[in-house]
Amino acid sequence: MAVRVDLNISLDGFATTTDQTPDNPFGEDWGRLVAAYVATRTFKERVFKDKSGAGTTGVDDKYARAYFENIGAEIMGAGMFGFNNHPDDPDWKGWWGDEPPFQCPVFVLTHRQMAPIEMLGGTTFHFISASPEEALAKAQAVAGGKDVRIGGGPTTVRAFLKAGLVDQLHVGIAPIILGSGIRLWDDLRGLELGYSVRSETAESGVVHLIYSR
Amino acid sequence: MAVRVDLNISLDGFATTTDQTPDNPFGEDWGRLVAAYVATRTFKERVFKDKSGAGTTGVDDKYARAYFENIGAEIMGAGMFGFNNHPDDPDWKGWWGDEPPFQCPVFVLTHRQMAPIEMLGGTTFHFISASPEEALAKAQAVAGGKDVRIGGGPTTVRAFLKAGLVDQLHVGIAPIILGSGIRLWDDLRGLELGYSVRSETAESGVVHLIYSR
Repeated sequence: MAVRVDLNISLDGFATTTDQTPDNPFGEDWGRLVAAYVATRTFKERVFKDKSGAGTTGVDDKYARAYFENIGAEIMGAGMFGFNNHPDDPDWKGWWGDEPPFQCPVFVLTHRQMAPIEMLGGTTFHFISASPEEALAKAQAVAGGKDVRIGGGPTTVRAFLKAGLVDQLHVGIAPIILGSGIRLWDDLRGLELGYSVRSETAESGVVHLIYSR
Repeated sequence: MAVRVDLNISLDGFATTTDQTPDNPFGEDWGRLVAAYVATRTFKERVFKDKSGAGTTGVDDKYARAYFENIGAEIMGAGMFGFNNHPDDPDWKGWWGDEPPFQCPVFVLTHRQMAPIEMLGGTTFHFISASPEEALAKAQAVAGGKDVRIGGGPTTVRAFLKAGLVDQLHVGIAPIILGSGIRLWDDLRGLELGYSVRSETAESGVVHLIYSR
């Protein structure tokens, strides 16, 4: 029942981007940040429901597959769910359509009091106001012995890292300089202590780095 | 006559450290930041004058060897030379002893007006107040057709990067989180445009990343 994190960050450490516009709600930079991940066969199958076998099958895809393996529950921040971008939409159900790729209970950390939303494909969104420890206990209670993923964004992930709750942190480092956004590594001096580290470079230029304990 | 940069940085992007004390003028963090580089056979030979053949000979050493190859002149900031740490020592000649590892003309960017200092082994320190473009012209004029290295520190390197003067940037990224210091990547959004990128991981855990054009 490991607690896991997987994030895409830029070489300068940003896990979010700042060039969103109404016409392009993710922004160009987000596309560049996650390009190698989105190009994988696994992402195309799991997120785009593309069963054609299209997509890359190299190192990036190995980590994309691992991303979805053995996850029994997920925790994410309100920003990742999209509440910050859609504060006034009472029917907002996240970015991922009717059949989100999670296929497990997802706990969204928010002060909003909302009933759970059951989606197609096994994903149910639960809305809770809780400390990292409390949220993790709730997630582990329904994870069926599988791992719990802290999905993001970086502020949520950092709170779990600082609390010492994360067993494995995988970052895909895109070799681009964004210059602004939310940094993953801020205020985490000495994080590496207590973890072993390994890294691997992908054909795309992305560096995959894994802290594990 | 390429213009090259080689730096060691932490995973959170810091190229300098902040835990120096009078008793430990480099600090523990500096030792951790450059550990893999200092462990190489090339560093031991070139900097420590250790001809015993001790030291690592893997990926880190490959980059250490490349660091010293085909350099005809070097440019460094006053901080890297040590003026900030030794402001009142009229006999200060840098950190590197009587026979520095550079073995070429070294241009130290400073407002101090000082005569050149000729060291053993081919290194001569010249002290100049100049823009990046002017300093580079001086260095290239004496480099004998070889490359010019912008040695550091990060503020000096960033000035040359921002001026578009650097042809190859190699960073050795140590998988540690320092939390403070001078960041290499600040204010360099879009640096990757116009460069190709490659990366390689070393046995030590260091990720070597190279921008080149």
